[in-house]
Order: sequence, then structure tokens, then C-alpha cells
Amino acid sequence: MTKKIKPSILPGFMELSTKEQLIFNDIVSKMSKVYEQNGCMPMDTPIIEKEEILLAKSAGETEKQVYRIDKEKNKQALRFDLTVPFVRYVVQHMNELVFPFKRYQFGKVYRGERNQKGRYREFYQLDIDIVSPRKLDITNDAFVISLAAQAFESIGLKDYRFQISNRKILSGLLEMLGIAEQQEVMGLIDKYDKIGKENCIKEIEELVGACKTIYIGELLEIQGRVDDVIKQMKAFNQKLGEQFNSDQEQMGYFKMRIGIEELEEVINTVRLLGVNEQNLRVELKIIRGLDYYTGTVFETVIERNENYGSICSGGRYDNLAELYTDMKIPGVGISIGITRLFFVLKEIGFVGSYTLEDTLDYLISPIGNTLKECIKVNQALQRQDIKSEIYLNKDPLKKQLSYADAKEISTVIIIGEDEVEKGQLIIKNMKNGEQTKVSRKEWFKREI
Amino acid sequence: MTKKIKPSILPGFMELSTKEQLIFNDIVSKMSKVYEQNGCMPMDTPIIEKEEILLAKSAGETEKQVYRIDKEKNKQALRFDLTVPFVRYVVQHMNELVFPFKRYQFGKVYRGERNQKGRYREFYQLDIDIVSPRKLDITNDAFVISLAAQAFESIGLKDYRFQISNRKILSGLLEMLGIAEQQEVMGLIDKYDKIGKENCIKEIEELVGACKTIYIGELLEIQGRVDDVIKQMKAFNQKLGEQFNSDQEQMGYFKMRIGIEELEEVINTVRLLGVNEQNLRVELKIIRGLDYYTGTVFETVIERNENYGSICSGGRYDNLAELYTDMKIPGVGISIGITRLFFVLKEIGFVGSYTLEDTLDYLISPIGNTLKECIKVNQALQRQDIKSEIYLNKDPLKKQLSYADAKEISTVIIIGEDEVEKGQLIIKNMKNGEQTKVSRKEWFKREI
Repeated sequence: MTKKIKPSILPGFMELSTKEQLIFNDIVSKMSKVYEQNGCMPMDTPIIEKEEILLAKSAGETEKQVYRIDKEKNKQALRFDLTVPFVRYVVQHMNELVFPFKRYQFGKVYRGERNQKGRYREFYQLDIDIVSPRKLDITNDAFVISLAAQAFESIGLKDYRFQISNRKILSGLLEMLGIAEQQEVMGLIDKYDKIGKENCIKEIEELVGACKTIYIGELLEIQGRVDDVIKQMKAFNQKLGEQFNSDQEQMGYFKMRIGIEELEEVINTVRLLGVNEQNLRVELKIIRGLDYYTGTVFETVIERNENYGSICSGGRYDNLAELYTDMKIPGVGISIGITRLFFVLKEIGFVGSYTLEDTLDYLISPIGNTLKECIKVNQALQRQDIKSEIYLNKDPLKKQLSYADAKEISTVIIIGEDEVEKGQLIIKNMKNGEQTKVSRKEWFKREI
Repeated sequence: MTKKIKPSILPGFMELSTKEQLIFNDIVSKMSKVYEQNGCMPMDTPIIEKEEILLAKSAGETEKQVYRIDKEKNKQALRFDLTVPFVRYVVQHMNELVFPFKRYQFGKVYRGERNQKGRYREFYQLDIDIVSPRKLDITNDAFVISLAAQAFESIGLKDYRFQISNRKILSGLLEMLGIAEQQEVMGLIDKYDKIGKENCIKEIEELVGACKTIYIGELLEIQGRVDDVIKQMKAFNQKLGEQFNSDQEQMGYFKMRIGIEELEEVINTVRLLGVNEQNLRVELKIIRGLDYYTGTVFETVIERNENYGSICSGGRYDNLAELYTDMKIPGVGISIGITRLFFVLKEIGFVGSYTLEDTLDYLISPIGNTLKECIKVNQALQRQDIKSEIYLNKDPLKKQLSYADAKEISTVIIIGEDEVEKGQLIIKNMKNGEQTKVSRKEWFKREI
């Protein structure tokens, strides 16, 4: 007897029941269909890549979380997102692609994060990205957000809320204020929700002084309906633009103004593309930690469940390709964190009440030596695209019926030797337990 | 300017063009549908598992090929097949599953093999397995093979050949002959095709002597139509059974006989299940290196392309669960090596002539300020489940048309400001270049 090993998986990894897996797959397939329907092409890239590719643009946090492979001389690691490999693919296959290039991708990524609720170390992302050499109109930013909305709607999820910003707004303001510590201030605002408003403001004060912090605070305070927010931001930008009028400061003023205008166009186009007012909010605190975003940034939360964090994020990255080429290849992308989304949907009861399309299905039960006949019936059903299976273990009927029951199969077709001889079938309705003997020919003519 | 990195992937990894990816996905989706249609449930397990789980039953070769993760104290590695994690899952979730438990799974696995044609270090497998505590009738072995056949037929592949054996036959013979070096002899026969017949026989002779080798050679020589092979094997078994009649030898005789009978039943049932005679061969040289198979074993080659190796393999494993539990949980499974299959299908021209279902699709081209109208037309098309996209970059019409051309989009709908005003559309047929101006209402009524 071998020594027994306790069957278990590593902490921070998700594994589903087969029932949940059916729902998970249905969600992915519906969302992917939305993307394909809208002209996105599928793509797949390796999970293991060269470390120099994966970590070229990443700051400290990612370095710490990355899974490294202990094999051969080449330094290898597991991808931590789908965007970096995507941009690598685009530059590598530049001459074969049709631009603007839209792709969607579904795959696992790895981050050795601290183990906590809703955060997994292995998780699926479902991404769309659009890139085009030289220029990519801002309309594309709105388009990808509208596709995420369609993806949510395709599974019947209505309570999502996009929180949209544009990094140029805040970054322009900081330039206007002559703040050298842009990264640090952005980093603090990125942690706004985590550390709380007071702490955030206090820490910014310590960094840049109370005077400048007042303006930052004033910008972050702007809230309300999207149109109001944009109006207020414009006024705020105008006011400051008159006040801070050195050449240097005016650069910041214009950057901020462009950010506001871009945000306005994204919001307006998103609405044109059919996204509802109540699913949209401008949220200037959104920074997105990763350092490759340059314009539009957004996150998505589920209403009244904001504490689970963002289930779909993304934005505009104009310089990511510069790692590999001198050519400008601006891009915009969104990523749905499918694993976390599924976790949240389970928590809020959405998975529990999810309805899979009813597939009429059959179990065919051979009693005695009737396998040959069962196979024929099975083939006839399958030719009609009907889901069916033969019970292959020689078990008593009772056990076969309890198998059907447990698997929620609606109808059992019982075929004994007597039935074969008379060209009959016994049809058992598993919902009400009714059992009828019918002519095989008649039944197929009538039911199938 | 940042230092540039050459965009590339690691050797031994496959990456497809988007067109190929469409075909790849179509193949996986058709095959998966066959499995779901036949009552297999979907499952997904982590790619990273505890090393003690993955390597518990593996011999030296696997140990050498496994990818280890350099992180934390727990020893972690990447899975090298889907079967070991499957059995771990089954024992772990014993009480939640419905038995006989049939599952299918599609996922990546990792083997650091020497880089050679058609062998990848990261590759997809598409597996079915059936397990049931205590007993699993031999019919299941035939069933999984017939599903592989259906999977091949579903994509229009006809030239596959199953090479089936049963390990009890050879193992029984070796017992009858009183050969202690079973593993070594099996290992040599496993390499039969690689090292050639002469070398194989010579090495066996060196190990067990010329006299015993004659019988092994005689068994391996048996060839022909499946029924003939079985007849000849039965006669061979009978003859030896009369010759070797000590108690010990008779144990081997019976084991061999059971192996032949099981093989016969698998072959007959596979045929009943609709697999054609010409796709079937008995091939006693098939051993399957992995040490967990106990009965039926098989491989699949493509006719006239045998040198690419097996594209689908599997067999019966009665003792794999013993790593985790004292309960017997026999299982049988097949695995299609989808990445290698795709490679072979490309090589033999199958991918090149693969037809994807024609999706009527449209590009909508805004000329001037007509985005709003384009969105409406797009939404109307999509409501009818039609694939369509709006060209979002403000590029000249010529560029938009060449985009449609490169993407093989069949029809472009051009909407300028004039068309909006008059409620018209310009419909451009990309195949013949014809362009007509139509009333929007009429066109939708007639065409959509």
C-alpha cells in the first residue's frame, strides 16, 4: 500500500464544481461572442515568456508578485497580464496584422499576491485591446468600454458601474502646480479608497505642502452626474489657467484641458453607443497602479458591492510599444477579471440563480443485453443535436435512475430485451416519475 | 528613448496568426461540443499544483521535464498532463460527484522536452476521463475511443487510425515466460518504432535470452485485420497455455487471455459505436510510457503521417487513485494533443483548406460626422446576430475599404452626411466592387 497524499490545491487558486463550471463557461462564451460579433479577433499567447519581455515596463510591485520558472539559462516567468504579451505580439507580427487591430483574449495570468478574499494568484482575464500605428482616435476608448457593457448585459448583469477618468487631468493639474513628485502623489491618490480621504490628503500635504494640496483636494471633491462633473472641471481648469500663467504652468493647463475634453468625448460616445446614464460615473481618483496608462483610465464595480474591488479595468496606453520599437503604436484596452467576477457573482447570489439554457437531454438505460439497440437510439438522438448518453456500467435500473436524477437529466429511455423485440421504448419522465411504453417509431416521429 | 528589446517568445512555444487562431478555436469548440453532447461535464484545474501531487506517480522522465516554480516554501510545479490533477480532484470532491463521473477538460500542460518538430513545451490537451468507484465496465474504454472518433469526424478529419492494445496481453506473456525484468522489456517495446525492430529484439535477447525472446517476437509479429489478429492471439495464447503449465505460468496465461478478451470486447464495442473498420488497428507494440496504465492502451496516428507521432492517446488506469485513498477508483481516459494535432494539420494542408462557417459580416464606414447614424445601423445589425463593426479611426474611405479587404469583410456600408439626411445607405460589395445607394428602410426590410 502506497503512502497516501492528501488531495488538495495551493491556497489562492480557484477550483469550481462541475455545475459552477458550466455557468463559468457559459459566461465566458457569451462575453466572447459579444467581442467576436464586434469584429475582435481571437489570440492566444504563451503563459511562460522571457522575463525581459514581461518585466521591462513593470514597477516594483509586479516584480515582487511575478512567478519565476526554475529551468534552463533563459530567465522565464509567468505572465501577470495579457496586455504586455499582446503588445509584444503586435510588434513582432507588425507586417501580418490588419490595423486598427482589435483582438480579444481569454487566458490565465499569475500574481503572487497576498492571499485575500476575491484575490486569486491564478486567475482568468478576458481582454480586448485595439492598437494602430501612429494614431488611434479617442472613439476607440469609448468603444471598448461599451463592449464591456454589452458583455455584462449579455449575461444579464445590470448593476455594474464604470468609474472613468483621464490621467491627463490630474497630471496636468500637478504640472500646473509645479509639483515634481508626480509619481508619489499619483500613488497616494491611487490608494485613496484604501487609506481613506483624510490620510490621503494628509500625506499629500506632507509631500507638497498645504497650499498646493488644496487644489488637488478641490479637484477630487468634484462629484455628481457626469455632465455636471465635466462642467465643474472645465470651470476649475479655467479658473486655475488664469491664475497660473507662466509658460510652464500653461503647459499643465493645456494638458488638463485636453484630458477633460477627452473624458467628455469618451463619456458622450459611450452614451451614444448605448451605455446607460446610471452605469456611468466620472471618478477622478481612478489612477490604475500599472504605469503604462497615459489617458483614459477606468474601473468597474458592482453597485452596493464596491468593496470587492474592480471587476473590469483598463485604459489608454500610448507608449507601451516603445519597449520594442521606435514606431508609436497607441493602444486602448479593457480587461475583465473573470475569476474575481465569478467569485463576486457567487457571493451576491447571481450564480445561484443563473439559468443555463435548458438542453433537452436523455439517459438511455440498457437492461440486459441491449447495448446495440441503445447505441442506435442514441445515434438517432444525437443526429438531431440532442444531448444524450448511454449508461455504460452494468448496474441495476435503480442505480441508473438515481444517476439521471443527480445529473438533472429530464428523461430516461429504458430499453430491455423485451422492448428490443417489440420495437418499443420505455420513456420515464424524471420530473413527475411517469413511465410509459411506446412504439419506438411512433415516439421518434412525434417527439424528435 | 528606451533601450529596445527584441520581441520574441521562447523556443518550443506555439503562437498562431489570428486566422489560424480562428480555425484552432473552431476545432476545439466542435470537439468539445461532441463531448458535452455525450454527457461529459466540463472541469478546470489550476496549472500550478503542489509538487507532491504532480510527481507522486511519475517515473524519472517526467521528473526531468517538469517546470518548477521558484516561489515560497511550498514546492510547486506546472502540470504535465490533465489526468493526475483530475484524479486528485475526484478524490478531493468524492462526495459531491455523480458516478460514473465523465468529464472533459481543455487546458495547457508543460513538458520541458527537447525542442523538436511537432513537440512543444507548452501545449493544449483536450481530455475525457470516466471514473467510478469500485468498478468501471470495459464498455467505457470503447466509449471514450468512439468519442475521439466523433471528435475527429466533427472537424472533417477522416484519416486517423487508432492503434489499440491491452497491456495485460504482453504483461501476461512475460509472466508466463517467467521474466522478472517486465519494466525493462516493456520499456524496450515502447521504443520499438524509434530504435527499429532488429535493435529492439536484440536488446530484449540480451536481457532475457534468445529462447524467451522468440515468443515475444512471435506475439509482436501478429498483424492484419483486427479480427484476424485477435484470432491469432487467441491461438497463440492457447498454444502457450498448454506448454507453460506450472501454477505460476498459468497465472500469466490467464492474465494474457483476459487481456485478449478485453481487447476483443473493446474492438467490437468500438465498431458498434460507429467507428469504421479502416480506422482501427490492433497494435501490440503500444505500451504508453507513463506508468499508470493497466489495461486498454491506444494511440492515434494520421495515415501516411505516422512520423508525427500520436495525436490522441490514452487508456485504462485502475490504480491511479491509490495515491490518495484506499478506495479503488478505476478510470479510463483519452487525451487529444490539440497543439500537436494543429501542427500536423497545418503540415498536411488540412488547416489551409479548412472552411470556417461563413459569417455574413459588415464594416460600417462613417464619412464625416455620421457616427451616431453608424451606431444605429450597427445596433440594428447586431440585434439580428450579424457580425459587424464600425470603422472608428477618422481615416479616408480608401483606407477603410482596404481594412475591410484585408479582414475579408464581405460588405461595407458607407454612411456620409448626405446619406444621413436622405435616410440612405451606400452598400459596397467587396467581392465584385459593386456599389449601390439604397433607402435604409428598404434595405433593412429586404436584406436583414
